[in-house]
Amino acid sequence: MSSRFLGNSIKFNNVYIVSTGTTCGPLEFQGPLGTYFDKGFNDHHCGEDSFEKAERKMLRDSLDICLKREKLKYKDIDIYLGGDLMNQNTTVHYLAREITKPFIGIYGACSSFALSMGLSSLLIEAGFVNQAIAMVSSHNATAERQYRYPVEYGVQKKPTTTFTATGAVSTLLTHQPTQVRVESLTLGRVIDYSQDDPNDMGRAMAPAAFDTITTHFQDLKRSFKDYDLVVTGDLSTYGHQILKEMLQRQKIDVVHYNDCGCMLYDTQKQEVFQGGSGCACSALVTMGYLYPQLKEKKLKRVLVVATGALLSPMMSAQKESIPCVAHAISLEVVE
Amino acid sequence: MSSRFLGNSIKFNNVYIVSTGTTCGPLEFQGPLGTYFDKGFNDHHCGEDSFEKAERKMLRDSLDICLKREKLKYKDIDIYLGGDLMNQNTTVHYLAREITKPFIGIYGACSSFALSMGLSSLLIEAGFVNQAIAMVSSHNATAERQYRYPVEYGVQKKPTTTFTATGAVSTLLTHQPTQVRVESLTLGRVIDYSQDDPNDMGRAMAPAAFDTITTHFQDLKRSFKDYDLVVTGDLSTYGHQILKEMLQRQKIDVVHYNDCGCMLYDTQKQEVFQGGSGCACSALVTMGYLYPQLKEKKLKRVLVVATGALLSPMMSAQKESIPCVAHAISLEVVE
Repeated sequence: MSSRFLGNSIKFNNVYIVSTGTTCGPLEFQGPLGTYFDKGFNDHHCGEDSFEKAERKMLRDSLDICLKREKLKYKDIDIYLGGDLMNQNTTVHYLAREITKPFIGIYGACSSFALSMGLSSLLIEAGFVNQAIAMVSSHNATAERQYRYPVEYGVQKKPTTTFTATGAVSTLLTHQPTQVRVESLTLGRVIDYSQDDPNDMGRAMAPAAFDTITTHFQDLKRSFKDYDLVVTGDLSTYGHQILKEMLQRQKIDVVHYNDCGCMLYDTQKQEVFQGGSGCACSALVTMGYLYPQLKEKKLKRVLVVATGALLSPMMSAQKESIPCVAHAISLEVVE
Repeated sequence: MSSRFLGNSIKFNNVYIVSTGTTCGPLEFQGPLGTYFDKGFNDHHCGEDSFEKAERKMLRDSLDICLKREKLKYKDIDIYLGGDLMNQNTTVHYLAREITKPFIGIYGACSSFALSMGLSSLLIEAGFVNQAIAMVSSHNATAERQYRYPVEYGVQKKPTTTFTATGAVSTLLTHQPTQVRVESLTLGRVIDYSQDDPNDMGRAMAPAAFDTITTHFQDLKRSFKDYDLVVTGDLSTYGHQILKEMLQRQKIDVVHYNDCGCMLYDTQKQEVFQGGSGCACSALVTMGYLYPQLKEKKLKRVLVVATGALLSPMMSAQKESIPCVAHAISLEVVE
C-alpha cells in the first residue's frame, strides 16, 4: 500500500480555517502589524500577578475570541492541540484544565505553530475529528528568564539575539469549506549544523528552514514562484539573509520571500535586536496579517515555514550544539 | 459528516506492532521484570559523562534494538514521534539529529508513551504513513534534578513520592498485519483536582486516570471484564488505591487491574517509595512485559492507561495545583 505522504509532505483536500483569535503584548501592538491583531495588551503582566499567568491569559483570550466569532463554546470542539515554550508546555496545559476536551500537547519550540496546525489538519483530513483548535503562545519575559536570564537582571545582549514575541493565537480548523484552506504540510527533520550559541538562533535555524523548503519544493514539485509569499518563522534579519544565501547557492530563485521575525516589528526603530522569535511570532504574522489577506484574495497561496530551535539550556551548558527543526504549511484561497 | 471518533475514543482496523526495543537502568534491571528487558545498564551513567547523555544513549539503544530486529535502518521509517520529561523534550530532539527523517515532538509527561503510540496509530490508520516509530525515555537522575533536587543533595523524600523510572522504549508500528495490534485509543482531558504537592503525584493523577478509564468504557461500551488486564501508567501503590476507590464508589467492578509503577519494582524490597513513574515506566511494562505475553497469547487484550502529571516547577512555586492527563491505548492479539 502506498502511503499518502509524498516524501515528507502531504496535500490536504478537506481542511479549512474557520476562525482565529490573536492577542499580543505591547511591542507587537505598537509594531507595524499591531492594528491587525484582535487584542493588544499595554503591559507584560496583562493584569495578572506573574508573567506566566499573563501568557496564559493571552492564550485564553485568543481562544475565547476565536470561538466567540463562531458562537461556539469550549465543549463544541472535538479536540485541542497546542504547545508553547515554557518548560513542560506549561501555558497550554494549565489552560487545558478549563477546556475539558481531549488535549494533545506538542512541542516544536517556535515551530509549534505549524506543527499544531499540521497535526490538526491531519486529524481532520483523515475524518477522525470534525473540528480542531490549534493553539500556541509565547511571552518575552517568561522565555527570557527560562532560556537566558530574567529581564530584571538587565544582561547585555549580543547583536545576533532575537526577541521572543509576546502573544497567543488560537485557530479553528474544520472539514467544512470556508474561504481559506490548509493545502499542504511538510514535516521537518531535526537538523544541526553545529551552532552552539543560544544568542544566535537565526544562524542555527536557517539550515532547518533550508531543508524543509527544499524538501517541500521537491516533494510537491514547486518553487518560490508557486507562492504569492513564502515566510519563514523567525530567522530574523541575520538568519533570513543566511537562508537566502543558502538557497541562492543551490541556484534556487528566491522571490516573494520574507521572515515573520522581520515583519512583526520595525527592527530599525523598535529594540528587538535581529527581530522576533517565539511560537507567537509566525502565528501572529500568519493568522493576524496574512490570513485576512487570503480571505480578501489579496494573496492566493502562501507557504509558512515555522522554524524552531530545540534548545535545552542544560545541553548548552554541556557544550552541545542546537538541534533545529522547521515545519511548513501552505494556506490557499478556496476558489 | 460524522467523525470517526466515538466520544474521545477511536477504534483502529489497521495498526500493528512490528517490533520494540527496551532498555533500562540498574534498579529496573534488578526489579521483578528485569529479565524481560532487552538491555539493562549497571549504572546511571551508561558509559556517558552526564545523566542527560546517558538517557539519550538508552533511547538510541532502544531504537537500534527495535530496528535491528527487522533489519531496518533509521531512513527506512516514514516518521518518528516521541517525547520525554527533560525540558524541551531534550532526549528525543537531541537524538533526532541522528535520524534525518520527519520528527514530531509530543509532550504528555509520563503519559507520553500512550500519546506517542496513539498519534502514530492515527497516522497509520489514516494511510498517511506506512511505518512510524513511537519513542519515549526517562531517567531518574535527570528528572530528579529538574523537578525536585539533584540526587547528590540527598534531600529526604516524602513517603508519597514516586520514583522516576530509568529506561527507554522504541516501538515500530505499521499497517501490515502482525501478531499484535493497537486496537483503540482514548485521548485524555486535562484534569485538576486541586492537588498541589509535587511529591504526591499518584493522588494528583488518579482523577485523570479515572476520567479516561470511564470515558473509554462509555465510548466503546466496555468494562474491566472486556480486558485480561488493565494497567495504569504510574499511579503507584498509593495512587492506584485511590483510583480503585474512585471507581468502586461509582459501582464499577474493578477486576484484572494493576499499576505499572507497582509492577516495575519490588516496592517492598527496592527503595522506590510508592513505586515507579516517568515515561519509561508504563512503556517498559507494556512493551517489555505485556507485549511478549500478547504475542504468546497468554493475554488477549490489555488496556494501558498512561498517566501524566503536567507539572511545571515554576507554577508549583506560584502555588498552582497540578494539571494531569491520561491517554489510553488497547492492545489486542490478532486472531
